[in-house]
Parts: sequence; structure tokens; C-alpha cells
Amino acid sequence: MESWPPGGSGPAEAGRRLRGLHGADLAASASLLSGAGAEAGCSAPAVAAVLPAGGSGERMGVPTPKQFCPILERPLISYTLQALERVSWIKDIVVAVTGENMEAMKYIIQRYQHKGISLVESGVTRHRSIFNGLKALAEDQPNCRLSKPEVVIIHDAVRPFVEEDVLFKVVTAAKEHGCSDYDLEFGTECLHLALKYCHIKAKLIEGSPDLWKVTYKRDLYAAESIIKERISQQICVVMDTKEDEEHVGHRLKEMLKNELNHVKVTSGRDLQQIILEQCYNFVCVNVMTSDFEETQKLLNMLEESNLSILYPVVVISVQFLDYESVPFGQKMGNLMQIREFAKEVKKTNILLYGLLVYYPQDEQKLQESLRQGATIIAALIKERNSGLIGQLLVA
Amino acid sequence: MESWPPGGSGPAEAGRRLRGLHGADLAASASLLSGAGAEAGCSAPAVAAVLPAGGSGERMGVPTPKQFCPILERPLISYTLQALERVSWIKDIVVAVTGENMEAMKYIIQRYQHKGISLVESGVTRHRSIFNGLKALAEDQPNCRLSKPEVVIIHDAVRPFVEEDVLFKVVTAAKEHGCSDYDLEFGTECLHLALKYCHIKAKLIEGSPDLWKVTYKRDLYAAESIIKERISQQICVVMDTKEDEEHVGHRLKEMLKNELNHVKVTSGRDLQQIILEQCYNFVCVNVMTSDFEETQKLLNMLEESNLSILYPVVVISVQFLDYESVPFGQKMGNLMQIREFAKEVKKTNILLYGLLVYYPQDEQKLQESLRQGATIIAALIKERNSGLIGQLLVA
Repeated sequence: MESWPPGGSGPAEAGRRLRGLHGADLAASASLLSGAGAEAGCSAPAVAAVLPAGGSGERMGVPTPKQFCPILERPLISYTLQALERVSWIKDIVVAVTGENMEAMKYIIQRYQHKGISLVESGVTRHRSIFNGLKALAEDQPNCRLSKPEVVIIHDAVRPFVEEDVLFKVVTAAKEHGCSDYDLEFGTECLHLALKYCHIKAKLIEGSPDLWKVTYKRDLYAAESIIKERISQQICVVMDTKEDEEHVGHRLKEMLKNELNHVKVTSGRDLQQIILEQCYNFVCVNVMTSDFEETQKLLNMLEESNLSILYPVVVISVQFLDYESVPFGQKMGNLMQIREFAKEVKKTNILLYGLLVYYPQDEQKLQESLRQGATIIAALIKERNSGLIGQLLVA
Repeated sequence: MESWPPGGSGPAEAGRRLRGLHGADLAASASLLSGAGAEAGCSAPAVAAVLPAGGSGERMGVPTPKQFCPILERPLISYTLQALERVSWIKDIVVAVTGENMEAMKYIIQRYQHKGISLVESGVTRHRSIFNGLKALAEDQPNCRLSKPEVVIIHDAVRPFVEEDVLFKVVTAAKEHGCSDYDLEFGTECLHLALKYCHIKAKLIEGSPDLWKVTYKRDLYAAESIIKERISQQICVVMDTKEDEEHVGHRLKEMLKNELNHVKVTSGRDLQQIILEQCYNFVCVNVMTSDFEETQKLLNMLEESNLSILYPVVVISVQFLDYESVPFGQKMGNLMQIREFAKEVKKTNILLYGLLVYYPQDEQKLQESLRQGATIIAALIKERNSGLIGQLLVA
């Protein structure tokens, strides 16, 4: 009841810890389960969601059904589950999958730590699948942890960008108008069909273009770009408090502001909080050249936090060096250790890169190398290219 | 007349030099200009195209009208023009743009060397714009180089992936059925409208999902990914014929076959031909470490060829070095020259990167470093990240 009705705003892909939201999407629909949970009162109806996910993905032109196609190495359906999970007032989520994909789905739930998900077998049509999902929610089965909801949201497994405010509108409309599960997917035509054949007054809820359906291969590309863009907005610069380094680190930070929307700085004390707020990009400024101690600390903290379960986390370990006066051949061996670290942390979905920033006496040259450093950092963050991990880039 | 009816197959984005095609798209439509050019005979009708491009791009959520939004730094409409230009039997292309965008459009035509394009001012609606385009084609104006066509294809400026075979079907249908310009965009509903209000028998031509309209920001993302994918299929490995280097170069080539579809090798003699066939990715294997002579030759050839006018060309300069026995600190200064080269050739849309491949005596280690080299090359080609040019990557 704590967040009903929902409000506020925050990062769209914020996940389970953050409840805020912004933007608006469309194309969930809701059914009233007659007689179920009506006693829950009007301020907080008992809401569940059913996701038909039995499709074969013929139009995609790829062998994997589209709901299981990977985006940044994570299956599409996991993003949709994440979007529904972060809505605190959705109590149960039922996913209908084919018997063939049941084990894969169980693995996805376990691997990405989805909570409150039940699985049922899908039917031969989308409507049969929805029916199976509703049945699981409606039946008072003895060993079933599902509670009878008042409203059930029917949501396509391949619409990953659904937002809480649209779901809220759908549920409110279901309570007020008694929506059918036909109403939202095909616009006005279906509103008439619902009225004609089912004598149900369907209501159209306006959404936003973000709530489109992943249908073709190009939609996977688009979804990947959208997700990359969302998790690349914010970067945290971790640096210690020693005078001199702080100076150049702060200047790097200022340069980064030209490339990225939100740049934070921490000496490490509030790092735990920043991780909780789901920042997926870190620059670690190391005091001593060829010293990865700071980076190592950050990596340990990230690994413990499980932040990288849902998205690849980018860490860029920055060293400053006047490599024109100090030939960096000797230091190179040390710096190249980053390749081994990178291989190791890749296993936990952390993408580690090294960046050596030229730090000359000449002010203008320094300015230029800092600018190039910021460009490289932004490029690494925006692309999240796992083929380039462990590389030592030079600005 | 030489390629009517069209046939054969080849790279979809092959551009002006290649006539072959594959795949199929939809959503061009055609109008008959009564009495015009009927004398051209049935085997090769005189065909022109009109592109309404006066839209403001409100739905995109960006200030630039969508037809001018950049994809790999080139405006979307230039891709559409390229797709129509490569169809040899389309004799004239008329683009309708707002007075405000007239100069920008002229610049685009000049910058990307589009040929046979005429500009007219757009109207307040899409249909007015089409009308203005048709008028320019129909009128026998004294100083006008346009010839009266028999069939006019109406094609959206924001559908960049149109293929020759669909255009062929549209033109054939126009000749046989007398299509209206309403027929193809909204499917069966519009076929009825055309019949009801215009007494015109419209015919639906089947296309493919590739011919979708760039409407939202996500469509730009998708278009960019599709274009990147298309130009990343083929790579050419340039290496000299000295025994030892050829050996390891060939092994690198074999590794690349695991990552990319088409891998070619040349000693340089048939490079001109490979450039003509529009390969946009090159690996240059340098014999002498810290010697960029081969790379320099390749870069000169590419600059002369104008290959990079339409797409960014990736060049990866590869050096082999046993840097565990020979500390590469000394060579580093030389190798870092690549940054200056990269900055220079970026001006002509060539993205230059360096790659140092560890070349130890140990067979297994060599195998591993070649594998990593191939991964890095594939990553660079697929992303085409201009933020990382001039970097010396290490495998």
C-alpha cells in the first residue's frame, strides 16, 4: 500500500531498489477476476500480472524465440520481469512458457534473481496461455502460494519498457470500467470487437511510443541501444583525497561533464550508497602509477554488491603519467596486469579497461590529454564492448 | 535498358557501382503520369522518383527533422538517395524539401556526391509536396533537365532500406494496373479507400519488414545497427609476401573467419579491385615493427578512392612482436605515431586503430594471442567507435 498511487520520478531502468519512475508507455491490458480480492479496498487493489511468453518468434528471423533473445547478454524477458518487479503493488507475476522452455525460464529466474514469479505451461494460442495464467491465479490450490488478485494485468513478455504509471492507469481503468484483455493491443478496432462480441466496455489507455513490441531483429538492436543509453547517463569518479591527484582528477571530472549527463565524485566513503543508487559506470583514479590498489578495492566492493547481475558494469582504471619525460616502458609490465584483472572480473559481468592519461607540465597539452581522456571514457561507457576489456588506452 | 528487368544478387548496401541486390522491402508507391513517355516501350519504362521530405519530425523527440538525423554522421536522407541511385533504371529523383532546409539539402547532395537529384519546395502537406515533385517532372520547362517519365515512384525519404526488386514490382504494377499513390502505405484499408473515393484499382505489392519507416528515436538506433552490420560483413587482410610474416598473417586471417563472414587476403595488387567492390574494413599486417609504410600506402589508396565518402572505413594496423623478450618500451614512441596518423585520416572518414599482437615462441600462447587479436579486430569493426581512433590495442 506504501506506494499506491505511485508518483515521483527517477531513472527509468532503476530496477528493484528504486521505486520512482518517469516517462510513460502503453500496451499492457488488465482483466477483472470476478469476486477475487474485492475486499482489499479501493485504495490498493490486489494486482497480479500474467505474461504470455509461449511465442516462437518466427518474424524475428533468428532461431531463438524473441523473448529469450539476449540484450547485453541477458534475455529480453528478464528486462520485462524487471520492469514489472519494480512496481511494488504488483504482488504476483505468472509467466506462461512452453514445456520446452520451462527449464530455461527457471534458469533465467534464478540467474537474474527475479522474485515472486510463478511459471505455468503456455497454451497453443496466446489466449490459451493467458487463460492458463489466470487459472493459476484464480484457483485456490492447496500448495499454491499465489493469492487471488482483484485485477490481473496481461502484459506481453516482449515489451520490456513498460512504466509504472501506465500500469497504474490500466489497473485503475480495469477497476472502474471492467476492461477485457482485448482492449489495448489493437486500438479502437478492438474496442469495437470487445463491445460487439463480448458485451464488454473496453477502455483505451493512452501510453507512449516507448512501449513498443520487440518483433523484428531491428527491434532487438533498438532495445539494446535504449538500454545502453539509459545505463550510461551516470558516472562516478572514485579518487583519494591527496592534493595533487585530486586536482587533476577533478579536472578530468569537469571534462567528463561535457560528455555525460551525471558525473559524481567520491573519495570512497559514500561508494556503497552510490552503488545502491545503481550507477553502472566508474572511473577509478589511481594515485600511484602502476598501482591498482584503489581499483582492486572498487572491484571487490562491486562484486560483493551484486550490482552487475542485471547490467554489465564498466570500470575504467585511470593512471596519470608524464610519459614523455618518464619513458613508460618499465611501468608497462605492471600496467599490463590489468588484462588479467579484466579477464577475472568479466566472469561477474564487470567490464574493466585501463586508461593512461598523459600528464605533462605544459598546461595546454594537459588540457588536451584530459579532453581526450574524457572522450575515451565516454566511448567505452556508451559502447560497453566486451571485446576490448583489459586494454590499456592512452590519452 | 541494360538492367531491366533487374536480377542477380549482391551486397544490399552495395551502392552506385554494384547493380546486384538481394532481399525485398516495401512501401514505395507509384503513379502513372498520363501520356508521358509511353513511347519508351514496355521493356524499359521511363521511371523517376519523388521523395517528399518536408516533414518536421515531431514524433522523433529531437529538434532535427528525422530525414536529416545523422546515422554514422551522415543524414538519413542520403541513405535513401543512395538506395534509389543504385537502381540504374530510375532516371531522375526529385526531392521536395522546405525552403528552410533547401541549402542543407544542397550541401548533402554535394558532400555525398549524389547524382541526378532535383530539388523542389515542399508543400504544407505530404500530398502537396508530392504534387510539386510531379509537377516538376510533368512540366516541359525550358531550362529543366528533367525528362517526362512514364512511371513515378513516390518514396518516403525516411525509408532508407528500399531494395531494387520491390521498386521493380511497384513499377511493373503501376504499368499494368495504374496504381495510385495511396496504395501501398496502409495496406488493404487504403486499397478500399482508393477504390471508393478515387475509382482507382490499387494493387498491393508485398514487401519485406526491412522497409520500415524511421519514425522514432529507436528507429534511428535500429537503422544505425543495421547499417553497421551490413558494412561489417567483409574484411580484407593486406599483407606482403615474405614467408614468415605471411605465415602468422594467414593464421590471423583464419582466426578472423570465426568472427566475420567474409575474409579476403591480398598482397596489395588487387587492392584497387577490392576497394571497387566496396569492402569497408581493412587489416594491414606490417612486416617491420614500428614501420607504418604498408599502412601508409593503404591509407593513401583509400583516400584517393573516395571509398569513405559514404561510410566510415576501418583500418587496423597490425604489428607482431614478442614483447616479453623484446621490451617494447623503446618501440613505443614509434608505434605511438599512429595517433597522429589517425587524427589526420579521420578528416576523410577513415577510422585508424593500431593492434600489437604478442608473438611468442610458445605455440599455445601464440594461438591465444591470435585469437584475442581476432576478437579485438571484430569488436573495432562492428562498433566503428570514433572515440577510440589512434589507440594501440594489445592482444
